[in-house]
Amino acid sequence: MEELEYNKKVEKWGIFQVKVNGFKDGNPFTDYVIRGIFRGKNENVKVEGFYDGDGIYIVRFMPSFEGKYIFEISGNAVKEKKTGSFEVIAPSEKNHGPVRIVNTYHFAYEDGTPYYPIGTTCYVWNLQSDEMIEETLNTLRESAFNKIRFCIFPKHYDYNLGEPRSYPYEGTPMDSSVLTKENFGDYTGKTEGNDWNFKKFNVEHFKHIEKCIQALQDIGIEADLIIMHPYDRWGFSCMKADEDALYWKYVLSRFSAYRNVWWSLANEYDLFKYKTIRDWEQYAKIICKNDPYNHLRSIHNCLSFYDYNRPWITHCSIQRQDLYKSSECVNEWRERYKKPVVLDEIAYEGNIQHGWGNISGTEMLRRFWEAVCRGGYPGHGETYMNASNILWWSHGGKLNGESHKRFAFLINIMKDTPGIGLAPSKKCAWDEICAVPESSCENEYYLYYYSFMQPSFREFHFDEQTDYEVEIIDTWNMKIEKAGVHRGKFSVSLPGRPYMAIRIREVK
Amino acid sequence: MEELEYNKKVEKWGIFQVKVNGFKDGNPFTDYVIRGIFRGKNENVKVEGFYDGDGIYIVRFMPSFEGKYIFEISGNAVKEKKTGSFEVIAPSEKNHGPVRIVNTYHFAYEDGTPYYPIGTTCYVWNLQSDEMIEETLNTLRESAFNKIRFCIFPKHYDYNLGEPRSYPYEGTPMDSSVLTKENFGDYTGKTEGNDWNFKKFNVEHFKHIEKCIQALQDIGIEADLIIMHPYDRWGFSCMKADEDALYWKYVLSRFSAYRNVWWSLANEYDLFKYKTIRDWEQYAKIICKNDPYNHLRSIHNCLSFYDYNRPWITHCSIQRQDLYKSSECVNEWRERYKKPVVLDEIAYEGNIQHGWGNISGTEMLRRFWEAVCRGGYPGHGETYMNASNILWWSHGGKLNGESHKRFAFLINIMKDTPGIGLAPSKKCAWDEICAVPESSCENEYYLYYYSFMQPSFREFHFDEQTDYEVEIIDTWNMKIEKAGVHRGKFSVSLPGRPYMAIRIREVK
Repeated sequence: MEELEYNKKVEKWGIFQVKVNGFKDGNPFTDYVIRGIFRGKNENVKVEGFYDGDGIYIVRFMPSFEGKYIFEISGNAVKEKKTGSFEVIAPSEKNHGPVRIVNTYHFAYEDGTPYYPIGTTCYVWNLQSDEMIEETLNTLRESAFNKIRFCIFPKHYDYNLGEPRSYPYEGTPMDSSVLTKENFGDYTGKTEGNDWNFKKFNVEHFKHIEKCIQALQDIGIEADLIIMHPYDRWGFSCMKADEDALYWKYVLSRFSAYRNVWWSLANEYDLFKYKTIRDWEQYAKIICKNDPYNHLRSIHNCLSFYDYNRPWITHCSIQRQDLYKSSECVNEWRERYKKPVVLDEIAYEGNIQHGWGNISGTEMLRRFWEAVCRGGYPGHGETYMNASNILWWSHGGKLNGESHKRFAFLINIMKDTPGIGLAPSKKCAWDEICAVPESSCENEYYLYYYSFMQPSFREFHFDEQTDYEVEIIDTWNMKIEKAGVHRGKFSVSLPGRPYMAIRIREVK
Repeated sequence: MEELEYNKKVEKWGIFQVKVNGFKDGNPFTDYVIRGIFRGKNENVKVEGFYDGDGIYIVRFMPSFEGKYIFEISGNAVKEKKTGSFEVIAPSEKNHGPVRIVNTYHFAYEDGTPYYPIGTTCYVWNLQSDEMIEETLNTLRESAFNKIRFCIFPKHYDYNLGEPRSYPYEGTPMDSSVLTKENFGDYTGKTEGNDWNFKKFNVEHFKHIEKCIQALQDIGIEADLIIMHPYDRWGFSCMKADEDALYWKYVLSRFSAYRNVWWSLANEYDLFKYKTIRDWEQYAKIICKNDPYNHLRSIHNCLSFYDYNRPWITHCSIQRQDLYKSSECVNEWRERYKKPVVLDEIAYEGNIQHGWGNISGTEMLRRFWEAVCRGGYPGHGETYMNASNILWWSHGGKLNGESHKRFAFLINIMKDTPGIGLAPSKKCAWDEICAVPESSCENEYYLYYYSFMQPSFREFHFDEQTDYEVEIIDTWNMKIEKAGVHRGKFSVSLPGRPYMAIRIREVK
């Protein structure tokens, strides 16, 4: 029994990591295991470690309580058990812990701080050059985004035919010089010319993704990891069951300890040629068994929703099913699933040929407000054409659109809501979207949104005893204008433009 | 037997009218009948006449064929039968006959000229002052509208609390000085203070409406007459069955001979407090029996559609059922009803407080194009606030909006379609609206509409043997730009703005 004493102090929800030398003969990824048990006053956590190459094994742990912990590392990868202890200190100012579900439909960090997800999608920003990654992080740092969806596997799709910076497995890819905008669809799944060892991970690929997860954590952004996806020419979407299981366990043992990780089992699960619901349920089992921290879990559709009622799913991760209605269906989905409704794809702002990637900034922002005022959480993406074919939606880089500039304003409106989260009011008229706080008294706060409509006034009938402060919100121009204090019956003048809202708050 | 010889020459689809003196004791509206039989080489038509006051009875007839006609007037209103003859001559240049259904989903005048309905709604433009009526007719004359919906009964509703120029019955109305914007809803249906004789028509009211129908005919506009409606404070919406029957027969005998008349049984039939489906079916029977010319017949909903599959209904007269989707459902409604889909209410362009009356000009025009490219026919209305509370939607007057200026351009696109009418193409992709001619070869004409989407290009794959002329249509700015002649696979550049269309026509 060897006693280890490094990383002596770690903050709550930080990472305590044990690195040990072990056997490296044969295939360490499959032949050996390493495990850790971490014991503190309030928890007792068993975690799986992973092989990190060069004979090194790593066991990672995210403590959820302050105080003294002891640990024990064991497994056939090492000759003898290792033990040690460390101290968990208070979290630093920007560390609020992992995101959890609150009030059925909403989110908060584990320390209770409300979390209002405003996500974006850059599928493989992490697999671009260092310069491009730096540019993406700079863009994100200056944005209002607090969640980003991206893939572990490289992506093969229109505008995405280049080679990734690295591959997840040892081996060699097919020759991509044969690909064109026209023929790329012929190269899907397990294509001729690829030669991978699905039992040997390319450790550098995963180390790099960890760097990206950490970089996002540093700027307060949740990493919504897409673990599998169908846009593939390398065969990563059609591995065998034991290869998939090995992959899932490796991903879980490497990434689980990062507090900002969310698990998205798949992007467009329903487009995989060789995977059944049984497979997805099997992966879900692996996650639930191997993630001791209960990170958020979901799975994203193309055409047909996964059954979000499944108990392992923590929140809906929806792609709209209708060209015209997306956020407008949030009420229905809340009713149906009784879980947070995250709209990870409501079409992207841009001007490419595809209908999923060519809505205007005004329409994107309208969908954002529509979703929020119905008690859901919208997601962004950008697909503006440019000469270099660098589209935010898959590469990251710079933003070119108009909607994203207006998200900070929206988040501030949400932050100014009593309690955590908005809900559709039951008193909502057919020609307005009326939001009230999810878990607070209905009478103290109302947010009316008028979407594409352009009323020049609206009438209200509140009780005669209570004073209400009225404000007119221009959601596009980001202006809030006071419109007096009223009680009983009153009328509020509006400019007769689309995208206006009215906020009415009880004067206390 | 008295021989009459006036109006000796009348044009086909014009009106031949016989005016006779008859009994005027008792109540001529109920105590006496007058009838006519009109015989030509190709038709033999029986019509009911009506009492026109001062002992005068009128029998009207619209001939559908040229040549010599003889007629016979009889009934207990006159002492003896009257006979006579007249000559039907060719129709004048602008007289194309009544509108009929063609190609299951479309319309043409009886002479075969295509009719593409672009309607508007001015519920009681006809019951305003002479000056206002003149202004409305001037506006219509300069517009692209070729159909207008309006009521025979006066209307009682928000922005419509004034007295009409006349009432349909002898008697006196309630004192309307008690009405306010707030309390008008309390005065619905049979309200205290009204005193009407539902068995005695005010002939002047009907004479005036005939003048309006004729004035519309003179400028080529179909009169879509709303015979009953629920927005009532006088009790006209809740008369007894025999009073209703009397009213229907009077309306039919007076107006049927006008070739530009359409019968709309009701506006918002489902809002009547005291009428059942049985009642509407009964009125439909009266129309079918008493209109020898088979004018178009429909009935308009508020929330719930009437069953447009009923055989007496010639076309759907739809009010949208969803705040967000209206014209987008045309495909579904065509499939369901196999009749022309007329969208008489898809919300009005304007800025009043009500959601049905505050969409923008761009959104209205989008709904128009969306409907047309799906093989339906959209309807307009305008509800812009103004100091005098004169809203086009109910009073007529002047137009203030933006969409109507762009309808002539749209009609011209429709006129340039081979055959009569557009249909949704079965090859339409999910992110475009693709129209083809209803009854012509699919390969010769395509109209692609991109609605709110803003692609910067679109790709096409036609056959390699045929040349196609490509044009880019800016539906808002009303510009058509040539984009070359192409065959096989080709790409068309677009400006990356919403509301664009592409027209592709075979070069012959």
